[in-house]
Amino acid sequence: MSIDRVLLKISGKIINPENAELIGRYALVVSKLVDEGYRVAVVVGGGPYARSYIKCARALGLSNAQADMIGIEVSRVNALLLAYALGERAYVPIPRNIEEVEEAWSTRKVVVVGGLQPGQSTAAVAAIVAETLGIKRILYATDVEGVYDRDPRKFPNVKKLDSITVDELAKVLSQKFEAGGYELLDPLAMQVVKRSCIEVIVFNGYNIENVVKAARGEAVGTLIVPCP
Amino acid sequence: MSIDRVLLKISGKIINPENAELIGRYALVVSKLVDEGYRVAVVVGGGPYARSYIKCARALGLSNAQADMIGIEVSRVNALLLAYALGERAYVPIPRNIEEVEEAWSTRKVVVVGGLQPGQSTAAVAAIVAETLGIKRILYATDVEGVYDRDPRKFPNVKKLDSITVDELAKVLSQKFEAGGYELLDPLAMQVVKRSCIEVIVFNGYNIENVVKAARGEAVGTLIVPCP
Amino acid sequence: MSIDRVLLKISGKIINPENAELIGRYALVVSKLVDEGYRVAVVVGGGPYARSYIKCARALGLSNAQADMIGIEVSRVNALLLAYALGERAYVPIPRNIEEVEEAWSTRKVVVVGGLQPGQSTAAVAAIVAETLGIKRILYATDVEGVYDRDPRKFPNVKKLDSITVDELAKVLSQKFEAGGYELLDPLAMQVVKRSCIEVIVFNGYNIENVVKAARGEAVGTLIVPCP
Amino acid sequence: MSIDRVLLKISGKIINPENAELIGRYALVVSKLVDEGYRVAVVVGGGPYARSYIKCARALGLSNAQADMIGIEVSRVNALLLAYALGERAYVPIPRNIEEVEEAWSTRKVVVVGGLQPGQSTAAVAAIVAETLGIKRILYATDVEGVYDRDPRKFPNVKKLDSITVDELAKVLSQKFEAGGYELLDPLAMQVVKRSCIEVIVFNGYNIENVVKAARGEAVGTLIVPCP
Amino acid sequence: MSIDRVLLKISGKIINPENAELIGRYALVVSKLVDEGYRVAVVVGGGPYARSYIKCARALGLSNAQADMIGIEVSRVNALLLAYALGERAYVPIPRNIEEVEEAWSTRKVVVVGGLQPGQSTAAVAAIVAETLGIKRILYATDVEGVYDRDPRKFPNVKKLDSITVDELAKVLSQKFEAGGYELLDPLAMQVVKRSCIEVIVFNGYNIENVVKAARGEAVGTLIVPCP
Amino acid sequence: MSIDRVLLKISGKIINPENAELIGRYALVVSKLVDEGYRVAVVVGGGPYARSYIKCARALGLSNAQADMIGIEVSRVNALLLAYALGERAYVPIPRNIEEVEEAWSTRKVVVVGGLQPGQSTAAVAAIVAETLGIKRILYATDVEGVYDRDPRKFPNVKKLDSITVDELAKVLSQKFEAGGYELLDPLAMQVVKRSCIEVIVFNGYNIENVVKAARGEAVGTLIVPCP
Repeated sequence: MSIDRVLLKISGKIINPENAELIGRYALVVSKLVDEGYRVAVVVGGGPYARSYIKCARALGLSNAQADMIGIEVSRVNALLLAYALGERAYVPIPRNIEEVEEAWSTRKVVVVGGLQPGQSTAAVAAIVAETLGIKRILYATDVEGVYDRDPRKFPNVKKLDSITVDELAKVLSQKFEAGGYELLDPLAMQVVKRSCIEVIVFNGYNIENVVKAARGEAVGTLIVPCP
Repeated sequence: MSIDRVLLKISGKIINPENAELIGRYALVVSKLVDEGYRVAVVVGGGPYARSYIKCARALGLSNAQADMIGIEVSRVNALLLAYALGERAYVPIPRNIEEVEEAWSTRKVVVVGGLQPGQSTAAVAAIVAETLGIKRILYATDVEGVYDRDPRKFPNVKKLDSITVDELAKVLSQKFEAGGYELLDPLAMQVVKRSCIEVIVFNGYNIENVVKAARGEAVGTLIVPCP
Repeated sequence: MSIDRVLLKISGKIINPENAELIGRYALVVSKLVDEGYRVAVVVGGGPYARSYIKCARALGLSNAQADMIGIEVSRVNALLLAYALGERAYVPIPRNIEEVEEAWSTRKVVVVGGLQPGQSTAAVAAIVAETLGIKRILYATDVEGVYDRDPRKFPNVKKLDSITVDELAKVLSQKFEAGGYELLDPLAMQVVKRSCIEVIVFNGYNIENVVKAARGEAVGTLIVPCP
Repeated sequence: MSIDRVLLKISGKIINPENAELIGRYALVVSKLVDEGYRVAVVVGGGPYARSYIKCARALGLSNAQADMIGIEVSRVNALLLAYALGERAYVPIPRNIEEVEEAWSTRKVVVVGGLQPGQSTAAVAAIVAETLGIKRILYATDVEGVYDRDPRKFPNVKKLDSITVDELAKVLSQKFEAGGYELLDPLAMQVVKRSCIEVIVFNGYNIENVVKAARGEAVGTLIVPCP
Repeated sequence: MSIDRVLLKISGKIINPENAELIGRYALVVSKLVDEGYRVAVVVGGGPYARSYIKCARALGLSNAQADMIGIEVSRVNALLLAYALGERAYVPIPRNIEEVEEAWSTRKVVVVGGLQPGQSTAAVAAIVAETLGIKRILYATDVEGVYDRDPRKFPNVKKLDSITVDELAKVLSQKFEAGGYELLDPLAMQVVKRSCIEVIVFNGYNIENVVKAARGEAVGTLIVPCP
Repeated sequence: MSIDRVLLKISGKIINPENAELIGRYALVVSKLVDEGYRVAVVVGGGPYARSYIKCARALGLSNAQADMIGIEVSRVNALLLAYALGERAYVPIPRNIEEVEEAWSTRKVVVVGGLQPGQSTAAVAAIVAETLGIKRILYATDVEGVYDRDPRKFPNVKKLDSITVDELAKVLSQKFEAGGYELLDPLAMQVVKRSCIEVIVFNGYNIENVVKAARGEAVGTLIVPCP
């Protein structure tokens, strides 16, 4: 069995205090990956509680950076929930910047983080952390089955794609962006996965089995192909 | 006008993301105190969001200390909201232990903290921070008018007390403790305010004018008399 | 042989620079526990040097919190002596707050600490650290044989108890407290060991064999039973 | 005289150890701004020494993130040179992440930083730091006179623009990007200045007088208009 | 009145918990210097308690570096006593390395430190801290009247020198070193004060008036002349 | 094969961004030592880039300590290059003071550092780090074959010595010092290796095989004998 490294990015829609049972299952699946010989880093989003806090930040007239920082703090609480649920396998406290990520990784533990800096999506954090730790595969757990050929919230008969290149995705997203769009990968995330040739596998994170399949490279969701 | 130091303890019931408008008013009143020459430290509780997170922590089977740590992190997000709302007047980032509290205080800014350590109530944090910074008056903003002669949730014609000694309060609370009680001051908080003779003024924090009155030593709520 | 976790709390009366030979023996017994498969955390008190420093702090008119901080620093020097004596097995530098404790524990080393915060007894530190690290047994090395039925400094024919519940102990100590008492477990320590069901075994720390016995759960000193 | 905040971004082409005399002049002009009542943050790039280090990183087969980190470290040495040259006015040590930036700013000193995170241009750092500190004007010292209507390295009769909107600039740069382009503002930087309405004034940094003019809002170089 | 910077180095023989009253007087004289417009850094030695701890470290078979670290920790406790006695004027917590010294100095507070690194005398710490902070005068409070023409512990009719150059002192000390000598300035300290032309005024620290005289440049003790 | 500890000190003349290929070979040889069971610490100097930065610092009128700090930062960039090239085997980020060195060593990784404090040569850093980590052999990679009987830059027929005692070396260097000399070991480094009996093997670092030979105690370069 070869030792491999993967980064698991979990949307805050999935990992948040409303979903204790799902957090528990994520702790189990990450433990399973560790037991199979993977080194695992995890990036957790903010979710609905972050949104409530950010809404309050805006009502208070705080700056965008401050609102982002508030949301980042909430994503770190989500990260701490998962890290504690992982027990001895995970590093605590939650790293707060890229140097602390490197330091935590030096202990050989699972490293769980939330956000790192204002102005970045969780996807960008995932890309930068993966690149820093030499990880070549991002497991992207979200609330849809993968990337579709058209916006599934607007069109009826959309088709899930098995794979798409970063460049094609960039075109699709930029179109959607003007139309309101959704944020799978922001420009920074795309730039990083492309320059360092990091695979991203987008899948439905409510189906926990997908995580193991994606780690092993089995067909699941949509593979974003980073380089020729 | 003499320079004075006060510690403002605000319940998480009052300062939390559901109450943006109230946070804004607290930012104004703290700014007013600073402009009048007070040095101010603030301790903020966790409130309903902390409770949701702690509930999740318990559902995950985390230890009591870990559940406390999760709640502490949420109280720090509340603290950050208030600190950002204070603008230049407040120190950021939020101090995470007593040495960082001392370090932040050295800059002469308003220091806002959430919790510090598992096993401690916010009231105990307030007492310890006040003692460490040489503060002799705690302004205790809560959701009742003060200390009553009997448990207001059980008896109809309760009377708010103008003052009570720590020792009397200890007796009252220990009775209530057996009956389920409520947590105004835990034993650690009482021990600290008593040994260092720190006044605690308990008042209704929804009435923002009470904060200024309490700071100035005017009659409001209930004065807990720490020493003979 | 099962892997187990224990917290060893050593009074500053025992571990201090006057007792180099005893520190050396404690280093050996902790090493032995590690070699037998235990994960070990250690909390060390301040002892006579701390008392001299605290006395000076009071003579200078420092606050109680400041005097406590001075004593905590001395307990950390004691902790560093023991950590260095443990060589590669122990983590240095000495953690200074609960997050650094968690970080140090992540390296799988023996973690040795002194005090953490003003207003806390070493016993409270032991309880909080144990709870945070998921440790269910505290080995409490002190200068008496265990808990007695009456105050051994006042009565002639006292009897050492084999076990006592936390609740019973609370009653005994609260009586003694009024009479000047001694401080085995303060209210915070009792609350933590009770809520998390952490066993405390109190024994004579000058007899080093007691440490191994207590770790293994053999009858020694007095067992404080935390929960029904 | 009103108190104002500006962020000065200096290209590593200008501030690097080959240009001691120019660093000295930048120290003087920043001091002058401080004396006039401005609060100033400074972001310094890596320059030729960073490029040599990054080239070595690539020759060693390091990852893109690691090469970025190496370059960031060099930009921090440049930042330290300028901070030391500023004497008492500047904060040292150089902040290494956004929380340390906030902490340094709390002391009311001039805050000088290099890079913060892999995957970010210095311009993005400037935008994020400005947004975090509530700064609404970036003084962008570079080695050209401003933004031109066409790429000055390709066309003879280019015209310097007095102003351009962020959206227009995005179009111009995206065209240039495909053609090799140059990196005035990357997408992250543009997104941040746009969402927080932060003015960017691009000017020739070899002419030190431009810094003061730009700070005062006088016409110099090209004004990038962030919002309608 | 001109603003000036001085570094006060106090032997651990003078500042230690046996001398609360003297610590109090040092707090007063430092406060006086601050009120007169001086910026003051203080370096405090370990004294008798450090020696007891170091003796224990040696008995435990710890390395020289570890014994030094133990002594350094004790000197930091002494430093904390003095810093607390200085109240609002001093920075806490005690800086533990040269970067923390710079950070503390940025707040404009009095900075008090103990040791910084194994292998260094307190005099070397004083020299390095002075050089780092741009301080040109070290006030060296010790338990003799100054530098003598011969070793006062061996010869009867010794004469206190009014001044001596660093180079002459180096010759005197190197002779004494072979004879058992005493440690006024070690080679590192001498090298630093010489290369940066830092005056050292050695005087009897039990006479507190000497501190103010030395700060003002009045004749007291022995002036060590660092450069031609 | 016994587990042994060695400290490798590499001159900045050898490890710097001009020599990527040589850095790669050093990464290989350190990896080889680790695979053979050695625990390895590495101290890296500043080299030509540090000199350029220091020259700029002096041109700016910075103090000697500040110029040293600038050079230390550059040595840390060199250290980071090597640490990254070592991959999983090395600890990052680069420790910045002696406590961080101890902390990094606790993870069992290879610890790579640059300078630590103003006023110290890299050789002194090597001696102090070795002493702190209990390392008894310093592998001193430089650009000459070892220690010569006379200054090789002045005399034609010099002879490389197989061994020399620290005391003899001190005499040789002090003579050379007056004549302009070169800096193999400064007084602080000599004092530390002598007091803790740490062997230093000086050899030509351009011949990478010498590193392994020196680690194994085979005859190579010059052995500096620290104690009788």
